[in-house]
Amino acid sequence: MTTTPKSPPAPHIAILGATGVVGRECLDILAQRRFPAASIRCLASARTAGERITVQGVDHTVAEFGPGALDGVDLILSAADAETSRLAGAEARRIGAAMIDKSSAFRADPAVPLVIPEVNPHALDALPPSPRPALRRAGIVAVPNCSTILLLIALEPLRAALGIVRVVVSTYQAASGAGAAAMRELAEQTRDVSAGRPAVPAVFREPCAFNVFSHDSAIDPSTGANAEEAKFTTETRRLWNTPDVRINATCVRVPVMRGHSESVCLTLKNPAAEEQIRSLLADAPAIQIIDDRKANTFPTPLIATGGDTVLVGRIRPDPTQPHDNGRYLGWNLWLSADQLRLGAALTAIKIAERLLAR
Amino acid sequence: MTTTPKSPPAPHIAILGATGVVGRECLDILAQRRFPAASIRCLASARTAGERITVQGVDHTVAEFGPGALDGVDLILSAADAETSRLAGAEARRIGAAMIDKSSAFRADPAVPLVIPEVNPHALDALPPSPRPALRRAGIVAVPNCSTILLLIALEPLRAALGIVRVVVSTYQAASGAGAAAMRELAEQTRDVSAGRPAVPAVFREPCAFNVFSHDSAIDPSTGANAEEAKFTTETRRLWNTPDVRINATCVRVPVMRGHSESVCLTLKNPAAEEQIRSLLADAPAIQIIDDRKANTFPTPLIATGGDTVLVGRIRPDPTQPHDNGRYLGWNLWLSADQLRLGAALTAIKIAERLLAR
Repeated sequence: MTTTPKSPPAPHIAILGATGVVGRECLDILAQRRFPAASIRCLASARTAGERITVQGVDHTVAEFGPGALDGVDLILSAADAETSRLAGAEARRIGAAMIDKSSAFRADPAVPLVIPEVNPHALDALPPSPRPALRRAGIVAVPNCSTILLLIALEPLRAALGIVRVVVSTYQAASGAGAAAMRELAEQTRDVSAGRPAVPAVFREPCAFNVFSHDSAIDPSTGANAEEAKFTTETRRLWNTPDVRINATCVRVPVMRGHSESVCLTLKNPAAEEQIRSLLADAPAIQIIDDRKANTFPTPLIATGGDTVLVGRIRPDPTQPHDNGRYLGWNLWLSADQLRLGAALTAIKIAERLLAR
Repeated sequence: MTTTPKSPPAPHIAILGATGVVGRECLDILAQRRFPAASIRCLASARTAGERITVQGVDHTVAEFGPGALDGVDLILSAADAETSRLAGAEARRIGAAMIDKSSAFRADPAVPLVIPEVNPHALDALPPSPRPALRRAGIVAVPNCSTILLLIALEPLRAALGIVRVVVSTYQAASGAGAAAMRELAEQTRDVSAGRPAVPAVFREPCAFNVFSHDSAIDPSTGANAEEAKFTTETRRLWNTPDVRINATCVRVPVMRGHSESVCLTLKNPAAEEQIRSLLADAPAIQIIDDRKANTFPTPLIATGGDTVLVGRIRPDPTQPHDNGRYLGWNLWLSADQLRLGAALTAIKIAERLLAR
């Protein structure tokens, strides 16, 4: 006599920072992807505890994150600040849960895998087995910075097939990267300026309406790079698992509500023809090519908003780098993606899907 | 007995395309710089002829450009389209006048100097002497594209002292580059979107409010570059007087009213320390350094608006290029400038000042 094996249970989930823009996006995407969940607990700071969030017809009441708030939870998705994520990470380890963290708290911690599912999913194998039946593995996984995720998803097929020696990238980053308050500031300041009233910066140092400005993260006085730019290099070293990463980045904010764009000029290790570049990109996961030269239609943050792929276009050789017989070492790409989804919540949830026991 | 030599007369000036954004800027700058003018004639197409323009308390009535419209004129500043500039250029040659042209009509014509006063003023020596007493020289001078002017003014001190091998540039271009109608479209579309109404593109193909998109010029199917990007190379070849120009450009529109910005990563011929780069830039004409790392204050199009210099900041080495002992071949710069002034009208008028007999 044989018995049908029971399918593993669905996990109890906690979303930390549930009232922020990434937290809400997590709730949306869990519902959209029919992520198996025995329960979803929404947690946030005392400031927003008690708020109600309705996602796809389901009401969630936000509870305060504090002692005992994670009891009984199998899987934590943290969209909280680094300090809160550190507290939650310690608690996750103590209770044998898994935590996938969007903050910067663990990105440099060699004991914590830093993962983009399309780039280095095997890094999850380093996690210990889960004591909980709902999950295969426990422990903390760090999710990279949004700008790194976009770039590395787009580069992965080229890196795998041809090798990448150097990248020069300039970003066009939306207000959403600085959270809900920054998005409100852009909306309100734009209305003020449109009505002839002065722009009054609060979240950003510079006016954000009808303006562009260098990314508002701290500058390292020894290199001149800001923190956002430095992340490209430090995170890519871990994601590509090599110290030899050459990325020269300039990070800039633009008056866009959500959706980051990047202008990329790269140097391959092995030269390639345009046909090969296009076919590698077309066959890769989480990439959608929008590249209609005749209609002048290419990726934009508006087209990318709400989407689950990196839009890639303006695919063209860089004639200022060595080339021969139509095969080029240098290539230009233009990317746009929804930074709250692919650059944060969706990537975290794709990692979570890989930890499920079922 | 000695006689005091008479000072040469002031020129009679015509502004072609006077009702456009660059034409109006020309009127402003002529007044601000107390440019000597015996008279100023405002010319435009039949569509706007009859309009009145008031600049610094002086009323100008716009006349239609047509046969005889340039009679008696010594100096023409053309802010018209390429076709109109071609007609005016033929007439300027016929009557022995000088014309300084902001359009693309003559930029590739080897018989017409292409000039940025801060880069190649000596190119004006090729012009024939003027038959008119108000001017030293006659003939046509072409003014480069705005994005080229900004970049080359900023690079000139580095090129002169150290040599420049290669430039990778990504632009953040304002609506003003596409004229007054594009600026109105940005303002109106922003109000529509802010009020929850849909964006309705007309001047641009893509929505311009809260969006960024690849520059709306035609793409060359053989290279994949758009016309704006190609101008960097073709114009710089003439301005630097060498076929060996390597500029890899990506041109992008941003929702900014006026003032272009550029993210620049360059390769020098000879390495330099940061101190030297800063001092070369600080001593150069038409450059203002805004580079406060502690306060995170750098050039923005809003700061640049109304100004007469290229604002340069984010001056920092590119560690992904060869370096030794603090001396780097690779450097990053971030530029902003008022594209209607320095990128067009002011540069044309600075050229005109060099043609004056007095």
